[in-house]
Amino acid sequence: MSNRQYGSVWKDDAPGSGSGNGLRDRIYTIIFESDTPAGKFFDEALIFSIILSVIVVMLDSVSSVKASHGDLLYSLEWMFTILFTIEYFLRLISIGRPAKYATSFFGVVDLLAIVPTYLSLFLPGSQYLVVIRVLRLLRVFRILKLVNYLSEADMLIKALRASRQKITLFLFAVVNLVIILGSTMYVIEGAEHGFTSIPTSIYWAVITLTTVGYGDIVPQTPLGQGLASVIMIVGYGIIAVPTGIITAEIAYASKEKPTSRVCTECSAEGHDADAEFCKKCGVEL
Amino acid sequence: MSNRQYGSVWKDDAPGSGSGNGLRDRIYTIIFESDTPAGKFFDEALIFSIILSVIVVMLDSVSSVKASHGDLLYSLEWMFTILFTIEYFLRLISIGRPAKYATSFFGVVDLLAIVPTYLSLFLPGSQYLVVIRVLRLLRVFRILKLVNYLSEADMLIKALRASRQKITLFLFAVVNLVIILGSTMYVIEGAEHGFTSIPTSIYWAVITLTTVGYGDIVPQTPLGQGLASVIMIVGYGIIAVPTGIITAEIAYASKEKPTSRVCTECSAEGHDADAEFCKKCGVEL
Amino acid sequence: MSNRQYGSVWKDDAPGSGSGNGLRDRIYTIIFESDTPAGKFFDEALIFSIILSVIVVMLDSVSSVKASHGDLLYSLEWMFTILFTIEYFLRLISIGRPAKYATSFFGVVDLLAIVPTYLSLFLPGSQYLVVIRVLRLLRVFRILKLVNYLSEADMLIKALRASRQKITLFLFAVVNLVIILGSTMYVIEGAEHGFTSIPTSIYWAVITLTTVGYGDIVPQTPLGQGLASVIMIVGYGIIAVPTGIITAEIAYASKEKPTSRVCTECSAEGHDADAEFCKKCGVEL
Amino acid sequence: MSNRQYGSVWKDDAPGSGSGNGLRDRIYTIIFESDTPAGKFFDEALIFSIILSVIVVMLDSVSSVKASHGDLLYSLEWMFTILFTIEYFLRLISIGRPAKYATSFFGVVDLLAIVPTYLSLFLPGSQYLVVIRVLRLLRVFRILKLVNYLSEADMLIKALRASRQKITLFLFAVVNLVIILGSTMYVIEGAEHGFTSIPTSIYWAVITLTTVGYGDIVPQTPLGQGLASVIMIVGYGIIAVPTGIITAEIAYASKEKPTSRVCTECSAEGHDADAEFCKKCGVEL
Repeated sequence: MSNRQYGSVWKDDAPGSGSGNGLRDRIYTIIFESDTPAGKFFDEALIFSIILSVIVVMLDSVSSVKASHGDLLYSLEWMFTILFTIEYFLRLISIGRPAKYATSFFGVVDLLAIVPTYLSLFLPGSQYLVVIRVLRLLRVFRILKLVNYLSEADMLIKALRASRQKITLFLFAVVNLVIILGSTMYVIEGAEHGFTSIPTSIYWAVITLTTVGYGDIVPQTPLGQGLASVIMIVGYGIIAVPTGIITAEIAYASKEKPTSRVCTECSAEGHDADAEFCKKCGVEL
Repeated sequence: MSNRQYGSVWKDDAPGSGSGNGLRDRIYTIIFESDTPAGKFFDEALIFSIILSVIVVMLDSVSSVKASHGDLLYSLEWMFTILFTIEYFLRLISIGRPAKYATSFFGVVDLLAIVPTYLSLFLPGSQYLVVIRVLRLLRVFRILKLVNYLSEADMLIKALRASRQKITLFLFAVVNLVIILGSTMYVIEGAEHGFTSIPTSIYWAVITLTTVGYGDIVPQTPLGQGLASVIMIVGYGIIAVPTGIITAEIAYASKEKPTSRVCTECSAEGHDADAEFCKKCGVEL
Repeated sequence: MSNRQYGSVWKDDAPGSGSGNGLRDRIYTIIFESDTPAGKFFDEALIFSIILSVIVVMLDSVSSVKASHGDLLYSLEWMFTILFTIEYFLRLISIGRPAKYATSFFGVVDLLAIVPTYLSLFLPGSQYLVVIRVLRLLRVFRILKLVNYLSEADMLIKALRASRQKITLFLFAVVNLVIILGSTMYVIEGAEHGFTSIPTSIYWAVITLTTVGYGDIVPQTPLGQGLASVIMIVGYGIIAVPTGIITAEIAYASKEKPTSRVCTECSAEGHDADAEFCKKCGVEL
Repeated sequence: MSNRQYGSVWKDDAPGSGSGNGLRDRIYTIIFESDTPAGKFFDEALIFSIILSVIVVMLDSVSSVKASHGDLLYSLEWMFTILFTIEYFLRLISIGRPAKYATSFFGVVDLLAIVPTYLSLFLPGSQYLVVIRVLRLLRVFRILKLVNYLSEADMLIKALRASRQKITLFLFAVVNLVIILGSTMYVIEGAEHGFTSIPTSIYWAVITLTTVGYGDIVPQTPLGQGLASVIMIVGYGIIAVPTGIITAEIAYASKEKPTSRVCTECSAEGHDADAEFCKKCGVEL
């Protein structure tokens, strides 16, 4: 029962071991944990099924493959969906607090991974959205006990979260910029050169500023080309801003942490490596 | 009347509270401040109006929407412009020093946000330039008291200002480079391959060096393709320069400086900002 | 016999100097070492041959050149292949442990550099794969004793290896993202706008997210263009993540560490590598 | 005669002040220095002429302008060329060591800025290469005494030079990569999909790896599109490497230098800011 770190998120949701419901306990151990042989086998089969079902959906979208093996793919897709539906209900039944699981990140993903197939009975085409199943693969890090990866991911997420406000400001500036630039180009170039409306021109400005450059809409007047050149060089410069923000945060986050020494007197943390006395209460460390 | 930090820019411009002009005082409080319920309501209505009026202008540029709802959009656009014009004059009247406001960043933006609609009576098409109204939304940071964002923005602006000279040098080098490369490609490829003039070739060089790559003009001779390859790889390398400059500045600006407090007992330095006792000798700071 | 650093990799594989096989010894010295005049000449001739043979293959692929000089290029290509084959067997024969060489990086490259030509007798077209010969040029750093470059390369490789887990996580996130985005665009745009299947749509998502932007497939519905704009701005933001990761690692790896020497008199630390006296008390270190 | 720093490069080349050649002295002062009113006027006129002459060449390349004002532009271009030729000979005559000037960076640029016009008498079209004149504008930093910019430029150049070896290694890796990837795509896609030869395919690989993405050549087979996707994601990742290299160098170069204190006993330099004793001889600083 050594379900460490990320797995232990559900720990307190495990059904009471004192209860007489042995079957529910067993299902919980197999589905939510991966320490028993059965649990490990279930997790590996799950990963394999997810990958296979995503490939089935992809192949189903290729018209030549659909023409030759359409029925097989259709059957396989429904088989996987029904399996995942059963699994979803087993998860709901076996866990201590179903509501908490159903509203958690993985709970929502697990639901979204089956809904599109049922929806496709009414809305043909929506079955392709089941590819959201790939997100279920994020479990692979927990299952394979890739704890190193989890701490690295934590670090990256922490760095991104720390730069949240700067990135928001930057995106706000970019959105303002593309609205003004797009409208200006709409006035300069006009509908006859492909800038058919302000939203289309904003779409062009995004394509240009991010250096994607499809080339489906291009300025054709000398004035428009001149302004476009300025936008490109500016875009070249401001692409540096988010990079600078995130680099600084990652460099800061990956730096050696302060020691984990804790004051025996007042439990204060975060002492420097060379500290000899607690900085909060003055007791010798 | 706790109009802090950015809002307080206008503080000393507030009409004298001793004067008998109570109406002017009230208008000032509503328009320039956001601490009273009326001021808060005004600010929120303003943000809502700005966003709505920008959407109206955008929709007006879409020919299918204009065909079906052109008259409504035209009326709405004039309604917003007249409202913003009244607001602009109320700002001018209620503030202590109108000239200072009129020449400030927000004063200029407020004016530019109404001029294009009037101009469109003489110059059809110019009304689309009112999208500059989105810049008025920058007020949102002051209104919503997003002080954190303001200090982050200050930090970013400081970092960009500190790298001003390096960025200028870099842009000077890039401009020289695209002029020389563009002219060389004009000589190599010539008008028959789309490089119709030196300005057009410079436009191509900007597109290539910034990695935008529309593909509307492409080299077709082996020599031209070879030179283009070199330009791309060089562009790949020099895209690193502004990133390096700005990253170094942001990393420098965002570093938390240790306090300069010195222990009165043992003269140890480098205490954390939250330290209450000397980390070297344990004496209270 | 001062075959330093990287060259010395093969040192212990040299045939025993006490053995009577003088010819094998001589061949080993010429082929694997570059300190004797003969060895130096061999290495330089080898680099020259590799470059020439790669140029021959490239010219052979240009149809106009092939039409006029096809026979000459064909003969040259076979000549180089036979020369490299002889060299490969001489390497196998002269080295102490042939199996170790044959499975090393350079051993595999040396083999792959000759196989395609022989393969082309059965599979026409495969001879162009001999360009893998350019990898043999990596030997140039050892031959020219560019030790500085080798230590720089070590540093870069160390930085990349240190960020291995973060980069893997990032690529995992990017792959998930392009699968979900590609499928969503397939549902939105459909086959009639060029998004003929989910794999094709994923290919489009990769082109867009990496800011390559060929423009061979472009969204045409307003909803598709809107989603594409969001993808581009997101791509603009997340391009910063790998840069941040690698920059932080390189900055960390290239920092000169201060020595860990401690003054025996006053226990001061942080002396420079070239310090001979303690900078705090003046005692000789 | 306070021709500081960069201007003083020519200081020791000034004609002997004791000589009777007053005219040569005067010319030197006007052309090479900018401290006298005449020298300042000459420099400003020179900058103005350079910019004007580059604009003339650009306009001359636009066919519509050439048709209407061709004769005027032709006369202006010859006038500027003759003026710059006279200036070049005056520089040669007035300086102390003409050979040193003629082989210096600015000497070569000054010559290349006039040669193409004369060459165009024999080789029509080559006159457009006179745009190399823009490089003469680099003098602007010396003339306007933008010493700050010069020290910033020094810093940038130092950072680039320090990362010279890493960048060389990186470019070597990129060149190897595009040769191998280009050839592989040539074998996969073949001439019928636009990959007409290995050089063309290498050109495509450069376009893709640098994220330029013109779209003039695009893979069309599923296998080719799959490989292209991998190349793009790899390119996305390795674009981070030069950025990381240069950022680390710029961050390092812009950091505070060690103190300039010199030991009074042994003249050793490079002491740390907190050093109390010379690290080389142990004497108190």
